Amino acid sequence: MALVVKKFGGSSVATTEKILNVAKRILNEKQADDKIVVVVSAMGDSTDNLITLAEGIDTQPYKSQYAREMDMLLTTGEQVSIALLAMAFQKLGHPAISLTGSMIGMLTNSVHTKGKILNIKPARVLEELDKGNIVVVAGFQGADKFGDPVTLGRGGSDTSAVALAGALKADECEIFTDVDGVYSADPRIVKNARRMKEITYVEMLEMARLGAGVMQPRSVEMGQYYNIPIHVRSTFTDKTGTIIREAYTLLEDKDFEIRGVSHDQKVAKIAVLGVENVPGIAHTIFSALADAHIDVDMIVQSIRNLEKNITDMVFTIALSDLPEAKKVVDVVAEKINAAAVLVEEDVAKVSIVGVGMLGKPGIAARMFGALAKANVNIDIISTSEISVSCLIKGSQLTEAVNSIHDEFFSD
Amino acid sequence: MALVVKKFGGSSVATTEKILNVAKRILNEKQADDKIVVVVSAMGDSTDNLITLAEGIDTQPYKSQYAREMDMLLTTGEQVSIALLAMAFQKLGHPAISLTGSMIGMLTNSVHTKGKILNIKPARVLEELDKGNIVVVAGFQGADKFGDPVTLGRGGSDTSAVALAGALKADECEIFTDVDGVYSADPRIVKNARRMKEITYVEMLEMARLGAGVMQPRSVEMGQYYNIPIHVRSTFTDKTGTIIREAYTLLEDKDFEIRGVSHDQKVAKIAVLGVENVPGIAHTIFSALADAHIDVDMIVQSIRNLEKNITDMVFTIALSDLPEAKKVVDVVAEKINAAAVLVEEDVAKVSIVGVGMLGKPGIAARMFGALAKANVNIDIISTSEISVSCLIKGSQLTEAVNSIHDEFFSD
Repeated sequence: MALVVKKFGGSSVATTEKILNVAKRILNEKQADDKIVVVVSAMGDSTDNLITLAEGIDTQPYKSQYAREMDMLLTTGEQVSIALLAMAFQKLGHPAISLTGSMIGMLTNSVHTKGKILNIKPARVLEELDKGNIVVVAGFQGADKFGDPVTLGRGGSDTSAVALAGALKADECEIFTDVDGVYSADPRIVKNARRMKEITYVEMLEMARLGAGVMQPRSVEMGQYYNIPIHVRSTFTDKTGTIIREAYTLLEDKDFEIRGVSHDQKVAKIAVLGVENVPGIAHTIFSALADAHIDVDMIVQSIRNLEKNITDMVFTIALSDLPEAKKVVDVVAEKINAAAVLVEEDVAKVSIVGVGMLGKPGIAARMFGALAKANVNIDIISTSEISVSCLIKGSQLTEAVNSIHDEFFSD
Repeated sequence: MALVVKKFGGSSVATTEKILNVAKRILNEKQADDKIVVVVSAMGDSTDNLITLAEGIDTQPYKSQYAREMDMLLTTGEQVSIALLAMAFQKLGHPAISLTGSMIGMLTNSVHTKGKILNIKPARVLEELDKGNIVVVAGFQGADKFGDPVTLGRGGSDTSAVALAGALKADECEIFTDVDGVYSADPRIVKNARRMKEITYVEMLEMARLGAGVMQPRSVEMGQYYNIPIHVRSTFTDKTGTIIREAYTLLEDKDFEIRGVSHDQKVAKIAVLGVENVPGIAHTIFSALADAHIDVDMIVQSIRNLEKNITDMVFTIALSDLPEAKKVVDVVAEKINAAAVLVEEDVAKVSIVGVGMLGKPGIAARMFGALAKANVNIDIISTSEISVSCLIKGSQLTEAVNSIHDEFFSD
């Protein structure tokens, strides 16, 4: 007997035909005494349709004044899918019941449209499982202390699935998605990228942070908090995918020195040139950006003229923040009398990740060597305990990722 | 200051433009210190669209096994309208909050898709009104003791509005609809039908029972139970409509001997001919119909042959029940050895209603006289304390209703 939470995204339940297929698949794989909880998102583009409706009231429905009502509106999306999926199980002859985020005891804070889970008391879920039901749960949503619906924001469905699995002490949380696991590099860029059988929470978090899109960091953190294995697998096949867990259980996967090569193209570089190097300069620039809610990633300060004590300040931000960041930096640059502000959009960040690099000198050097071999210039380098990242020209990304991947996954 | 519950149906909130119009109208009419609760149905045909979705899972989504999930599905319809209407008030500058049936403390039984209200504890509504909010409430829905959504079935939105008004001790419940009040006869049939300023619960119930479509009996009963005046008025104009209440307050309206002429074309007549008149015959026929959940309305038993003790049993049922009723009656007729079963679909019931006829002999006779004047033959007559009904040929309905109306509302 196993208690498993299975999460299906919006594209897996986009039509009633697909909903019936999801139900069939789950019943086919189910052992007689398995207890199954299915977490689903809203059908296909139904959330977008609801947002379009809201735009009929105000062209900017995401203004904070509307946040509570947007949650009231958007939570109907998952409520539709859970009702239909529960009906599908019943149609196929298996008892099932649907429960909203509020009904599974998922208590959130009251930050509407960007809620955080405070705790989960899934008594009703356990009760319905004991009655023999497959329990179909609305992802992406909980309720605050007033009983008002609250959505969890980006990546919320994965997060609620993993958190519910944790609260239920489930054996595993399966995340069904359009890829069949976590790869050593993006398979669209690296032909011989390998699918990992296992990866640790820490490595997955670092890869997600560095651009791997397969899992949102929030849900991986939730898995780590509850120590629930997360099985990332394909909606379209029944092959085993990748299990994200605390530590490796398979010798085979332990041997690699790095776990993977991540990349991120959605970055931009800003250089504030010719700044007088006096205390507080960095603080002036970066606190102005922080005030505008812009995250700064890599930072390098380099001396341009030692005698005149003139320095350059170079950093990267998310590409989507560039227009706002440029405005903020231009104002600061004038104030601190900088010589110039340069913006570069043709940049990308390539990173290697792996707990195996801890205490193994030479890993970073091998990465730089691989980049040199591909004739790729390095603009900025940054490191963490389990990763090394290099900012390079965006147009050289494919060569860079392949060369690094060949270096570490050559056999 | 007044506390008013206003109910708008699905066609009034069919588009976001209409939703904004509803919000504007309410704000225009609102006095500064009025407390307003708005009960709304699902947008236009959104409920039909949800049912179509469910039919993608099973062509018969109203099978009882699906009832709970249908409620989970259908309650999203009102949840969408309340969110959008609350946003519309906010957009127009007035604080507002939406609440589902569960959140207003509307406790129902667990008879999904046909729920009955057990009680209402609207603490949250009062709290939000005290904060200065317009409270926008999902009609047609409550929650049972498990917290599961339950819909109230036909006429449910009016019923929940009136019941909520009662629980809040509101001054009035306004029902906005596509007609501008209750008329002395159907204005589509009788050109000079009069709009009533007032009508009593008892008369309105009798008129509804006898075919007047403007209000469902359930919501009138609820108004009577709580003694809440129900103001039936038009969505399209701001004229006063008809107030349904315990007793008349206006002299003017007291004078009429009857309140109105109702009619019902959706009836059918069944005649079981040539039955031996022995004890238990009526019971045999009507208990078989009751077992098939078919309501019988008018009944007449007439002796055909006194010597042989042979009788005919004639009765009316709803036209929609005819196919099922015919099957049931054919079986019984064979069993009791009846001579024949005749079915007549070209029939209609015309009725006069009014508490004024109590203790006034001659009212019924004037009705029969009016029918005779119009050359309309009477097939069956039935009476209650405050009504007289005649079954006539369906094709003579217009003349019949007009002649009776002229008789009683001649000036």
